[in-house]
Amino acid sequence: SGLWRGTRGHTSASRLDLSGIYPPIATPFTAREEVDYQKLEENLHKYAQIPFKGLVVQGSNGEYPYLTEDERVEVVKAVRRSLPSDKLVMAGSGCESTRATIQLTEKMAAAGADAVLVVTPCFYKGKMDSRALIEHFIKVADSSSVPVVLYSVPANTGLDLPVDAVVRLAQHPNILGLKDSGGDITRIGLVVHKTSRQDFQVLAGSAGFLMAAYCVGAVGGVCALANVLGRELCELERLCVTGRWDEARALQQRLIEPNAAVTRKLGVPALKQAMEWFGFHGGACRSPLQPLTEAETEQLRRDFTSNGWM
Amino acid sequence: SGLWRGTRGHTSASRLDLSGIYPPIATPFTAREEVDYQKLEENLHKYAQIPFKGLVVQGSNGEYPYLTEDERVEVVKAVRRSLPSDKLVMAGSGCESTRATIQLTEKMAAAGADAVLVVTPCFYKGKMDSRALIEHFIKVADSSSVPVVLYSVPANTGLDLPVDAVVRLAQHPNILGLKDSGGDITRIGLVVHKTSRQDFQVLAGSAGFLMAAYCVGAVGGVCALANVLGRELCELERLCVTGRWDEARALQQRLIEPNAAVTRKLGVPALKQAMEWFGFHGGACRSPLQPLTEAETEQLRRDFTSNGWM
Amino acid sequence: SGLWRGTRGHTSASRLDLSGIYPPIATPFTAREEVDYQKLEENLHKYAQIPFKGLVVQGSNGEYPYLTEDERVEVVKAVRRSLPSDKLVMAGSGCESTRATIQLTEKMAAAGADAVLVVTPCFYKGKMDSRALIEHFIKVADSSSVPVVLYSVPANTGLDLPVDAVVRLAQHPNILGLKDSGGDITRIGLVVHKTSRQDFQVLAGSAGFLMAAYCVGAVGGVCALANVLGRELCELERLCVTGRWDEARALQQRLIEPNAAVTRKLGVPALKQAMEWFGFHGGACRSPLQPLTEAETEQLRRDFTSNGWM
Amino acid sequence: SGLWRGTRGHTSASRLDLSGIYPPIATPFTAREEVDYQKLEENLHKYAQIPFKGLVVQGSNGEYPYLTEDERVEVVKAVRRSLPSDKLVMAGSGCESTRATIQLTEKMAAAGADAVLVVTPCFYKGKMDSRALIEHFIKVADSSSVPVVLYSVPANTGLDLPVDAVVRLAQHPNILGLKDSGGDITRIGLVVHKTSRQDFQVLAGSAGFLMAAYCVGAVGGVCALANVLGRELCELERLCVTGRWDEARALQQRLIEPNAAVTRKLGVPALKQAMEWFGFHGGACRSPLQPLTEAETEQLRRDFTSNGWM
Repeated sequence: SGLWRGTRGHTSASRLDLSGIYPPIATPFTAREEVDYQKLEENLHKYAQIPFKGLVVQGSNGEYPYLTEDERVEVVKAVRRSLPSDKLVMAGSGCESTRATIQLTEKMAAAGADAVLVVTPCFYKGKMDSRALIEHFIKVADSSSVPVVLYSVPANTGLDLPVDAVVRLAQHPNILGLKDSGGDITRIGLVVHKTSRQDFQVLAGSAGFLMAAYCVGAVGGVCALANVLGRELCELERLCVTGRWDEARALQQRLIEPNAAVTRKLGVPALKQAMEWFGFHGGACRSPLQPLTEAETEQLRRDFTSNGWM
Repeated sequence: SGLWRGTRGHTSASRLDLSGIYPPIATPFTAREEVDYQKLEENLHKYAQIPFKGLVVQGSNGEYPYLTEDERVEVVKAVRRSLPSDKLVMAGSGCESTRATIQLTEKMAAAGADAVLVVTPCFYKGKMDSRALIEHFIKVADSSSVPVVLYSVPANTGLDLPVDAVVRLAQHPNILGLKDSGGDITRIGLVVHKTSRQDFQVLAGSAGFLMAAYCVGAVGGVCALANVLGRELCELERLCVTGRWDEARALQQRLIEPNAAVTRKLGVPALKQAMEWFGFHGGACRSPLQPLTEAETEQLRRDFTSNGWM
Repeated sequence: SGLWRGTRGHTSASRLDLSGIYPPIATPFTAREEVDYQKLEENLHKYAQIPFKGLVVQGSNGEYPYLTEDERVEVVKAVRRSLPSDKLVMAGSGCESTRATIQLTEKMAAAGADAVLVVTPCFYKGKMDSRALIEHFIKVADSSSVPVVLYSVPANTGLDLPVDAVVRLAQHPNILGLKDSGGDITRIGLVVHKTSRQDFQVLAGSAGFLMAAYCVGAVGGVCALANVLGRELCELERLCVTGRWDEARALQQRLIEPNAAVTRKLGVPALKQAMEWFGFHGGACRSPLQPLTEAETEQLRRDFTSNGWM
Repeated sequence: SGLWRGTRGHTSASRLDLSGIYPPIATPFTAREEVDYQKLEENLHKYAQIPFKGLVVQGSNGEYPYLTEDERVEVVKAVRRSLPSDKLVMAGSGCESTRATIQLTEKMAAAGADAVLVVTPCFYKGKMDSRALIEHFIKVADSSSVPVVLYSVPANTGLDLPVDAVVRLAQHPNILGLKDSGGDITRIGLVVHKTSRQDFQVLAGSAGFLMAAYCVGAVGGVCALANVLGRELCELERLCVTGRWDEARALQQRLIEPNAAVTRKLGVPALKQAMEWFGFHGGACRSPLQPLTEAETEQLRRDFTSNGWM
């Protein structure tokens, strides 16, 4: 029904394989809150050494709501330029309105994104029922020249993309999969089950339930913690896909608290602090995100040390 | 501590009086989803005949998250141009980042806004504690050349500006008041109580609790329903401020269901439909907001007719 | 349709007038967690001096879920015995099952209750829709020989009795009113509005929104804080019903924080501690309710002193 | 520290092995809402043929909040009498107060329960923090002559037993494990991880996430759906514990929708209806639980047929 057919001709035969681990990269800022492209590039060089499937740019951890549209596109260009071409670039292009999402999606494709990650609009949450969300995503997928990955992140949006909407959208040839950050494993299993005929690909949206998600049929993960412990998450992936569940379990368990610390408990400022500890550039956050207090920094450190990571 | 001191010299003596009723105006769109300035202007001419204290432009009902920054500013200019100068223009200038909010605030002031309404940032809701929100609003208020009104709208943001943050911010000479759309009347009473020495002005954010808010000390209301039943809400104001509580109660009660219909229950599409019924231009919504279904239209109609408004 | 018709013959002409203030009395326990009837009686003698309309026995603050059925009935008997006959005794008789509620209601009536307060069953909250709740309350009201007051307390039950259920139940001749502890003032106004033909009586379930509830049409309040500041709440009632709203507002505002402290913030242990400070017997709580920590006691004291009550 | 030491002498060496599948049995009622012991016994005979580890009596699906204390004990006696002695009987003995829980626990032990399942008290949810809950469970475990299993079921109680409380309680020699019905798989993994030195046993509280729970380290499940599809759940257990994850996944996926139907979506009345379809006695529910509507019955049927179970 739209542009994507003519330009790329995706069919189920040629669907992009999303399986693997992706860090949703943080955006380092200078002390003056400008995007620090130098530090970003240094991070990218290090990430290129880790067996990631690709990178997510402008996921929630990238502080994308704090970037201008120009900055959002510019960062994607910088990543694409710097990253080996065999690594996928999945770019967040979701906006509140359908028209803005369509426009940004095209810019992201032009900037070199291999796929776009489109978050649920959420401001009018009372009206964002399946009908509205299906309409939104179909319009975006129809017009996009690159494949679309749905993105449900209720902790930020207050909204879970309903399963029936996912099932309906999975039938669209330009919608490849779902990043589910809600972590309801029953729901993830159900989505896999109900979309099994569409070769729909589900990615776990957090490291805390990555192994369980693999267990019920997910094909990969977009995990904030991969900014810090990327090799370990790729190792967890390898253990899961090769069926070495006992080893996987032991590793998974040690990742739960560090992951909670850099996401739900202490957020992006903690992620950036932990990146600094592990040899990456985190940098400052943009206001109104605040630096960690001393007590928070201690808590963060404890969540890594008590699990043997520091 | 900032720009606003020098340029306007607000002191407690000269504080802008916010008391009264404001419609948070809807933005009419054409069938192609462009801003329909012609229809907007016709609405403004009608609103000028109603004893409103002023208008809120880019409140939640204005679909501001669906407008570009340029459109947001342009609409404020159009309103200021068209509206008699004795009517206040309060412009929504809240963005997720502090820096974007500061920039848009200045554009709104330059576009003719008498005050800005600044919503709580909310995407990283887990990190938006009092510390972060106080820092955000102080930076904005310090730099703004026009007075700032705080805006708490948990139904959309998933976040209630904490009372202790409001109390702290009320001490800032460039923060005049709070639009509270949460509707917790105990909280509204407490805010009035704890800011009584600062001459802080609280506005009810919805018509459903307007009378109760006056009762506990609010000075006015920003009410979606004022787009439809503006005269009636100004009449309710008059009854409250003159102490005619029995008449006020009878009128208030008839407004609860129509108000719920155009806000919590059926949202902006219902507000725009009701505007059409009552002689204003509602127009289409931008996608992903969907037109009302037939069943929803019937429900909307019932909420007006059963209370004697149609 | 049931027993109550024959035995008492309530008609709308003879409906019990519920208007006024009620403390939902605390149950003092000994150090060994036995009901301390001696201390209870001393409290009752003091309450008899305050112009309360009556007392609620076995409301949430009475720790009724921690009492055996025998204790629940025994306490009501003790209260009825001790209290002047012109004071109403409203006894909590709600249980999870309809049959248990019916049985306890009869025991409460036999023990001397003038009316029963019946809380929404809540354990199977997903199934407690309007259909189930209407059925439950009608069966109870049909069989009860004393009038029934509905009780909605979402902070404890996780469930708000839906407005449509209240409106339906208000038509039952043996259902007199609603104690609403949720505090949504828009909802309270709507209930008053939609039941105006049934002479249905709404009681505010907390002191924090008592004045606002009067303002929108409530006829009284069942307020935990009345255990501590009973005279002051009766004075607030007097100011509201005589239309002295400015004085009412000043008094109401000073009650919000003490009320929040003994309810939402610090709960029954704080209520009992405050009772001790103000010359009543609070006594211990039953486990698992814990005594206040020192920090909590300080916070409680501050909420009273900063409002001029200590 | 209490009775249980002397009488049973549990040590970590002799800890009761909880691993396996348990139906939390439904309580069949007659049309007059009396416990139907005849039908109960017939169900038990059928359950005895299924390789369950044991039965849970008075779990949420047993409508225990609708039973009198005498009925609760009587049903346990009936189950113990009828069930082969190699099957465990785990009896729900949780009440709101600590003292009532202690008393009922002893009655359950005397009635033949091998262990008790103790739900979190929840009425005063604002006060049920880790401090209160730890105190409660320690007192119960100290005095109980049979081992205690913690029970967290937030959909009914509005309360999740905090992980730090679980970790603390796992050190008590008479607290064997946790039934977790919340289904947060990250939390379940973390509990397994943080209690690994205590040989603490975690049971999944619902069939929807049974496989994922095994994957992260749970040892069994207490699953409403086992009342209906007991053999299938025991087969799923076998596949998980023998590491046949691909087969497990295919089976697990077909169980998600039937499980949701008899729990979260349609509740106990649906569970009882499905039992009738599959050759067991469900019987009526006690009021206020209502029979399924026709539309609900259709939905229930669809959730079984579309997954190939009917």
